[in-house]
Amino acid sequence: MAPNRIPGFRAIRLAWLHWAILLLACIAVQAQTDPLPSWNNGAAKQAILNFVRTTTDRGNPNYVPPEQRFAAFDQDGTTWVEHPMYTEIVFAFDLVKQLAPQHPEWKTMEPFKSVIAGDQAAMENFTTKQFEEIFVATHSGMTVEAFHALAKDWLAHAQDPRWHRPYTELIYQPMLEAMRYLRANGYKTYTVTGGGQDFVRVYSEQVYGIPPEQIIGSALATQYTYDAAGKGILVRPPTVLLDNNFSGKPEDIYLFIGRHAKAAFGNSTGDQQMLEYTQAGAGATLEMIVLHDDAQREYAYGPAQGLPATAVGTFTQALYDEAKSKGWFVISMKNDWKRIFAWEK
Amino acid sequence: MAPNRIPGFRAIRLAWLHWAILLLACIAVQAQTDPLPSWNNGAAKQAILNFVRTTTDRGNPNYVPPEQRFAAFDQDGTTWVEHPMYTEIVFAFDLVKQLAPQHPEWKTMEPFKSVIAGDQAAMENFTTKQFEEIFVATHSGMTVEAFHALAKDWLAHAQDPRWHRPYTELIYQPMLEAMRYLRANGYKTYTVTGGGQDFVRVYSEQVYGIPPEQIIGSALATQYTYDAAGKGILVRPPTVLLDNNFSGKPEDIYLFIGRHAKAAFGNSTGDQQMLEYTQAGAGATLEMIVLHDDAQREYAYGPAQGLPATAVGTFTQALYDEAKSKGWFVISMKNDWKRIFAWEK
Repeated sequence: MAPNRIPGFRAIRLAWLHWAILLLACIAVQAQTDPLPSWNNGAAKQAILNFVRTTTDRGNPNYVPPEQRFAAFDQDGTTWVEHPMYTEIVFAFDLVKQLAPQHPEWKTMEPFKSVIAGDQAAMENFTTKQFEEIFVATHSGMTVEAFHALAKDWLAHAQDPRWHRPYTELIYQPMLEAMRYLRANGYKTYTVTGGGQDFVRVYSEQVYGIPPEQIIGSALATQYTYDAAGKGILVRPPTVLLDNNFSGKPEDIYLFIGRHAKAAFGNSTGDQQMLEYTQAGAGATLEMIVLHDDAQREYAYGPAQGLPATAVGTFTQALYDEAKSKGWFVISMKNDWKRIFAWEK
Repeated sequence: MAPNRIPGFRAIRLAWLHWAILLLACIAVQAQTDPLPSWNNGAAKQAILNFVRTTTDRGNPNYVPPEQRFAAFDQDGTTWVEHPMYTEIVFAFDLVKQLAPQHPEWKTMEPFKSVIAGDQAAMENFTTKQFEEIFVATHSGMTVEAFHALAKDWLAHAQDPRWHRPYTELIYQPMLEAMRYLRANGYKTYTVTGGGQDFVRVYSEQVYGIPPEQIIGSALATQYTYDAAGKGILVRPPTVLLDNNFSGKPEDIYLFIGRHAKAAFGNSTGDQQMLEYTQAGAGATLEMIVLHDDAQREYAYGPAQGLPATAVGTFTQALYDEAKSKGWFVISMKNDWKRIFAWEK
């Protein structure tokens, strides 16, 4: 009996035929769909498309094998809003107020005193060392789970003062699209932030689709010990283990990945070394920096358009010049991004 | 015209039919194939099979979602031979001899002096601090690429004195099978070693199928700087960043993964805290320790069978008792492993 006389088999074959047609149709639609719909056509968008196209094409001399496909994204000012204050600083200030009753000494002790008093002028002039003191004080002395719960609770309730939305809604939609596009092409996306690793881990999977093991950030040490019931726990001593800023970024990328990233996205001098070290790797690489030049839809700061640098996001003229001389792509929020936030009209 | 009158389509449909039959046949074979053929039937093998079965079954209360599937493997004495000396110690001793001409001061300076003189008795009595001195001296003062090249070259030429084989052939075949079986079921396998992270990274992908970003180990710091041409490079200062032994293991697993491992494999007191912390996580977990009780096929040491503990692989009576009281599985090399090495007859 010929196979096509068996009705069951024939039905299966027809089903296959339909699936095949559907599959081909999907591929055709896929090919026509813009993977970066929130980007205007321009050099920045083309740079991402070209990079992915050439590094995933086996016939291209710049082909990158899947196991080497890593892309590193700074967070503050690169994948979400950092102005007028880093979100984690707002969180830490709130935590100082929340924890103050357990620390009566803070009332007369800087920098805590100014935070408790809400002295805006003093807070704006805190030194790096004072910010670190606040970071350490608010992130240590508890189990890793207790910190996670504090951060999660704060993020669920806190709102940005300008848009009155949770901070996790202030993600740049074009960067989310770039992350997804890279992942769809075999790239592992990492957040590489000067902020706290454990803070970002609270929302990274949900917000960026980046799992906790792909978050590299500044980190306090942990200390293994036992709770009252003899169960193993990890608590945070007040000791900085990783300062993931400036040179810390390439150093920590190497610690976590053991390879160069192939693509790196940043927006400030804190990302300079990461961008340099990415470019120092073999083969094709992609380096991009976000220029905040859109006061209307977001903020404008940095010198590239004669705008003043601010305490955060120090996109200096020197960084701009280095970018231009080395072939890094400067992303203009104003010109390159069709929309900035997912909820934008 | 009916589709089956088009010869091209008919050929395609027939090809599909053949593929489908082949696929079904493969699935059937797969179902009957033992994923752990180098394991004898017994409690240890059953523990692995049960753990994977229950944690990957959506209907089971102990189901573990894919994003939480992490398995941690100690290396020395757990996934390869550690007796009579850790491989990396042999490497470091050889490196001391190789680097000695650049360090004339070592001739009169312990512990280097004894290594250069080949004073076996002295070397066997080195303190932990002296081993660390040797580790730091031989692993620092060069770029990460230079160290990689040194280790790769050594591994290509060095041979174990007993079996006269490259050290990378002294991998325990049953553990390789456990790794592959876990990976086939969605687990990400990590090496979590007291040895040097960068040493293991040289061969981990090829030997264990574990990529560099899944190697957690002891590590020197790196320092970002520039070469003569102004290119960004990472060099090793003589500073220990991570001591991935004892409490360091759960601490570093948290640093790298941000979650508890669900399964952990070790063989000594250096793994105790990792095993404890794994068990302290929510839901089903698996903890296993390798007992070296096979003097004929490998080595016998540790107290569980009245054997003396040695300088390496301190599987103490206290650890054995903890394992028994907490439901960890003790793997007897003699009884649980049908064969130890891939090349064994």
